[in-house]
Amino acid sequence: MTTATDKLQADLIISPGWIITMTQPGKVLRDCSVVICEQKIAAIMPTAEARLRYSADTEDLLPDAVLMPGLVNTHGHAAMSLLRGFADDMPLQPWLQEHIWPTEERWVSEEFVRDGTELGIAEMLLSGTTCFSDMYFFPDQVAASIRKAGIRAQIAFPVLEFPSAWARNADDYIHKGLSLYDDCKNDALVDIAFGPHATYTVNDESLSKVVSLAGELDAPIQIHLHETAQEIEDGIAQDGCRPLEKLQQFGALTSLTQCAHMTQVSDSDISTLQQTGAHILHCPQSNMKLASGFCPAEKLLDAGINVALGTDGAASNNSLNLFAAVNLAALIAKGATGNAAAINAEQALRMATINGAKALGREHEIGSIEVGKYADLIAIDMATIQSQPLYNPLSQLVYTDCAGQLSHLWVNGRALVADGELQTLDQEEIIGKARSWQQKIGGN
Amino acid sequence: MTTATDKLQADLIISPGWIITMTQPGKVLRDCSVVICEQKIAAIMPTAEARLRYSADTEDLLPDAVLMPGLVNTHGHAAMSLLRGFADDMPLQPWLQEHIWPTEERWVSEEFVRDGTELGIAEMLLSGTTCFSDMYFFPDQVAASIRKAGIRAQIAFPVLEFPSAWARNADDYIHKGLSLYDDCKNDALVDIAFGPHATYTVNDESLSKVVSLAGELDAPIQIHLHETAQEIEDGIAQDGCRPLEKLQQFGALTSLTQCAHMTQVSDSDISTLQQTGAHILHCPQSNMKLASGFCPAEKLLDAGINVALGTDGAASNNSLNLFAAVNLAALIAKGATGNAAAINAEQALRMATINGAKALGREHEIGSIEVGKYADLIAIDMATIQSQPLYNPLSQLVYTDCAGQLSHLWVNGRALVADGELQTLDQEEIIGKARSWQQKIGGN
Repeated sequence: MTTATDKLQADLIISPGWIITMTQPGKVLRDCSVVICEQKIAAIMPTAEARLRYSADTEDLLPDAVLMPGLVNTHGHAAMSLLRGFADDMPLQPWLQEHIWPTEERWVSEEFVRDGTELGIAEMLLSGTTCFSDMYFFPDQVAASIRKAGIRAQIAFPVLEFPSAWARNADDYIHKGLSLYDDCKNDALVDIAFGPHATYTVNDESLSKVVSLAGELDAPIQIHLHETAQEIEDGIAQDGCRPLEKLQQFGALTSLTQCAHMTQVSDSDISTLQQTGAHILHCPQSNMKLASGFCPAEKLLDAGINVALGTDGAASNNSLNLFAAVNLAALIAKGATGNAAAINAEQALRMATINGAKALGREHEIGSIEVGKYADLIAIDMATIQSQPLYNPLSQLVYTDCAGQLSHLWVNGRALVADGELQTLDQEEIIGKARSWQQKIGGN
Repeated sequence: MTTATDKLQADLIISPGWIITMTQPGKVLRDCSVVICEQKIAAIMPTAEARLRYSADTEDLLPDAVLMPGLVNTHGHAAMSLLRGFADDMPLQPWLQEHIWPTEERWVSEEFVRDGTELGIAEMLLSGTTCFSDMYFFPDQVAASIRKAGIRAQIAFPVLEFPSAWARNADDYIHKGLSLYDDCKNDALVDIAFGPHATYTVNDESLSKVVSLAGELDAPIQIHLHETAQEIEDGIAQDGCRPLEKLQQFGALTSLTQCAHMTQVSDSDISTLQQTGAHILHCPQSNMKLASGFCPAEKLLDAGINVALGTDGAASNNSLNLFAAVNLAALIAKGATGNAAAINAEQALRMATINGAKALGREHEIGSIEVGKYADLIAIDMATIQSQPLYNPLSQLVYTDCAGQLSHLWVNGRALVADGELQTLDQEEIIGKARSWQQKIGGN
């Protein structure tokens, strides 16, 4: 006989209709619970057994929901949410040079970054992201917003040659970034990476410094790479080689390197990526909207290269909903290769979860539901018209956009969204601030 | 001075934050109302003026919403919603021959069509579709579900050589379809079209009959056409010409012809389409998911050919949310052509509204907000995190999937969705029936 005193103490038991662990292809658990103790997953077992063995302060009964690992959005610029829909239907360079950069030059400030990042984090939380990577000015403000929200993140502080409201030149960016690195050393939720913007915006000297410092600190590097065909042409004209080769020459390609976009991939690029273990951050919406090209995710995965997903910023997407990126990644892989089996539902969800964790160097901590990992989890309500019937919860999550059905989200076992409502951020305040920026920036 | 008795009587005044009429590119009205009398739009005018001139039973105040024409989903098979997610990640022919057709043979019945169509209609209503086209067995059941829901539709009754639970052979399909035509003659919400499935499933004799009967009745023809490259190859091998040419030879191409899919388009196809005025029903999700190819929507529109949008059935999409098709149509046009200005937000929304109305021969009745047209309208709530800031409501509707933010939907001025809830269909009953079919068909 088991008495209450025999039971182990837990903080939370979550008992959903289905559990997708992302540990084995096609694995979907029924009638099981996830037990959470001290921020981590302590057990995954049949609900009846969990109730016998654990005593928890709370049991969240979610019989209509799928429980799965929180999504990992590996590339974005959260503060740019304030420029969502500001300039659409134009290619990367005029979009950047004529619209985004001049607007940023005029408006970016500590307040812009704080308000924009909170808006972006709120959107990510409400659509299932528990961990994101960010690259933007005033990353100290980004860190403050992350702490306020309680979300997990990597901040890749930007390094550029040109001045901004945050820093004067590349040395200044690096200096301020290193100071942020020190500030966040003991922060369990925030990792710091180097974010040299691109090979065309960072000169050789700065790139060398970044590589050397990142090496010393064992810190990741995230960079925009091979985003467009033009970038390759310009790189060859200027450096005599493709930007990826240049990075290799500088020693910038390691298993800690995160290459965002990669729409242009040659066979020799694939060998280089295989040799170095660098990760690809595939941003399908942004690449299609800016007509940058298609990242050959299927080919890269087949070659054993890790491919994760990102939304990019809301100025070029225009959404931070990573489920939409999952859907599009699965669809365009098929459309672009002519193979309807390319990037199946399982692979698409892996890119958004465990592959994302790997890309950010956190696969031992997050990205799947496994005992010992942090309890970064999401629950998606499947009792909706658009989710019926439910032959296969996994394909339903990929081929019907389920983000709007998110009911709960936990980071470290702490509910940041409950019953569809933000718990740590104030939705009305965020909307009010976004409207005020809209009036200032757009005059409407 | 205006007194109550001077006022004109209206049934409903809708006063939203923004009105997108779809009558002129970029036109967005502020502080205006739409006045509805006897199912039709009686006036569009400043709200203050509308209140002075009209007395209405109801005024719907929706200051946070965009009001726009209801979406027109020009190609689908609503009952196949019961096979949503039943077979994913495989190409068209094995998907049809090994999974869909055998399952349909076993399960399709009057009840299957009734329950599946109600599920499909419910999903379309909740995501903004006020008019759809359907092609499926037991179209009399489809008509009954349409009347029950109060939605507008075209039913293209299927014509095939092979037997089904509904009909024995092509003649029987045609016979039953003509009987449906008679039944629906006085039905304001339902139009009947001929639905010869494809040139590879209908023989020459049946095709001739369809063309001749449709001509006599002045009824539209909807057909699956040039869905895959294989279809073209097979057509050339069997008939010595491309399926489109074959249709032209049979006199089947007129301004009443609706060609679904068209991923394969030659220059001579474009001339043929220009000469005949036939319409294209672009189904981007289905075409990508089954790796069928890309419909060159931009090129077709530039050639003056009408291109509308469809979701196809939920078995190959897996969603009937036409806003998602709008988003994907805008994105893949850019991705596939390398031109980031291809299919801008305005064009994408036109395809889903006025172009859809044109394709179904109803552009004088629906597809835009204009005085004299039926009040088929939708309201999308923009007071959400993911819609902030709102520089341009039109691009927001296209580049962020707003379907989940639908608050109201009217057909003929009658609210079929209010505050996000179905008004004419019973959501719980529909979900219950879908689950019961799931258990029968999928055994889970």
